[in-house]
Amino acid sequence: MGLFTKDIATLDDLFVHTLQDIYYAEHQITKALPKMIEKATAPALKAGFEKHLQETEGQIARLERVFEMHGAEKKAVTCPAIDGIIKEANELAGDIADKSVLDAGLIAAAQAVEHYEITRYGTLIAWAKQLGREDCAAVLKETLDEEYATDDKLTKMAESKINAKAEAAVA
Amino acid sequence: MGLFTKDIATLDDLFVHTLQDIYYAEHQITKALPKMIEKATAPALKAGFEKHLQETEGQIARLERVFEMHGAEKKAVTCPAIDGIIKEANELAGDIADKSVLDAGLIAAAQAVEHYEITRYGTLIAWAKQLGREDCAAVLKETLDEEYATDDKLTKMAESKINAKAEAAVA
Repeated sequence: MGLFTKDIATLDDLFVHTLQDIYYAEHQITKALPKMIEKATAPALKAGFEKHLQETEGQIARLERVFEMHGAEKKAVTCPAIDGIIKEANELAGDIADKSVLDAGLIAAAQAVEHYEITRYGTLIAWAKQLGREDCAAVLKETLDEEYATDDKLTKMAESKINAKAEAAVA
Repeated sequence: MGLFTKDIATLDDLFVHTLQDIYYAEHQITKALPKMIEKATAPALKAGFEKHLQETEGQIARLERVFEMHGAEKKAVTCPAIDGIIKEANELAGDIADKSVLDAGLIAAAQAVEHYEITRYGTLIAWAKQLGREDCAAVLKETLDEEYATDDKLTKMAESKINAKAEAAVA
C-alpha cells in the first residue's frame, strides 16, 4: 500500500486490494501450519492441521482463479492482521510447558486464524455480489464454507477431548 | 509473556493468560474506535461505532468481574493479533480516497475486530466450563452474544446500504 498516496478510489479497488491481502494471508498460513503440525500432540489435531494445510493450498488456487476471472493483478500485499495473529500463536506456543495444554492453545490459535479468514471471505463475497461478480462470489463461497467447517471441527475437537486432557495437566 | 521461560503450565494458566490478552485487546479497541467514528461518514455507521464503544467499556468491566471471580491478576498482556488487526485497519483507511468506499472499508475492519473477539470469547467460555467455572462462562457469554449481534448489524448495514453507496463512487 502506498504510504503517501490514496490508491483505493472505488469499491472495485477495495475488492482487489482485499483479495491481495487474503492471498498474502493464505501464503503465511501455509508457512505457519507445518510448525503447528510439528507442535501438536493429539493425533486427531495433527491430522486436522494436515488436512487444513491441503485445503489452504486449494484456497490459494481458488484466489488465483478469482484474480484471473476479475482481470486483477495476482499479487500479495502485506497483511499486518495475519502477521499479528501468527506472531501471537508462536509466542503463546513458546510459553506453554505441557503438551496437552499446548494442544488446547494450538486449537485456539488455529480458530483465530479461521475467524480472520471467515470475516475476510464474508466481506469479499458481499463486495463481489455488489460488483455484479456472482461468479467470483461463488468461488469465494466454496472457501468460506470450508473455513466454517474447519472452525466447527476444531470446536468439536476441543470440547470433546482436547480441553479435558489439558485440564488434567498438573503444574 | 516470558521469552525464555514457559510460564503456562495448566489450562487454568492458559485461561488467565487469554483473559489478560483480550483485556489488552478491548483496551486497544476503545482507543481505535474514536478514530473510526471520526472517519465514518454514514450517520448509521457512526452511530453503530459509538454504540460499540459504549459496549466495549461494558465488556472491559465484565472482564474485570471475571478476574475477580476467578481470583486472577487483572492485567493486560500485549496481544500482537489485535495490534496487527488495528494496524491493518489504519493503513487501509489511509489508502482510501472516497468517503463511501472508506465506509465500506471501515465496516470490513470492524468486522475483523469482531471476529477476533468472537473467537477469543468462544474459546474462553469453553475453557471456563472445562475448569468448572460456569459462573465465569456465563459472564463471558454476555459479551460473546453482544459481539455476534454487532457483527450481524454490521453485515446488514453493509449489505443494505453502505456497499451500494460505495459502488456508486467513481474514480
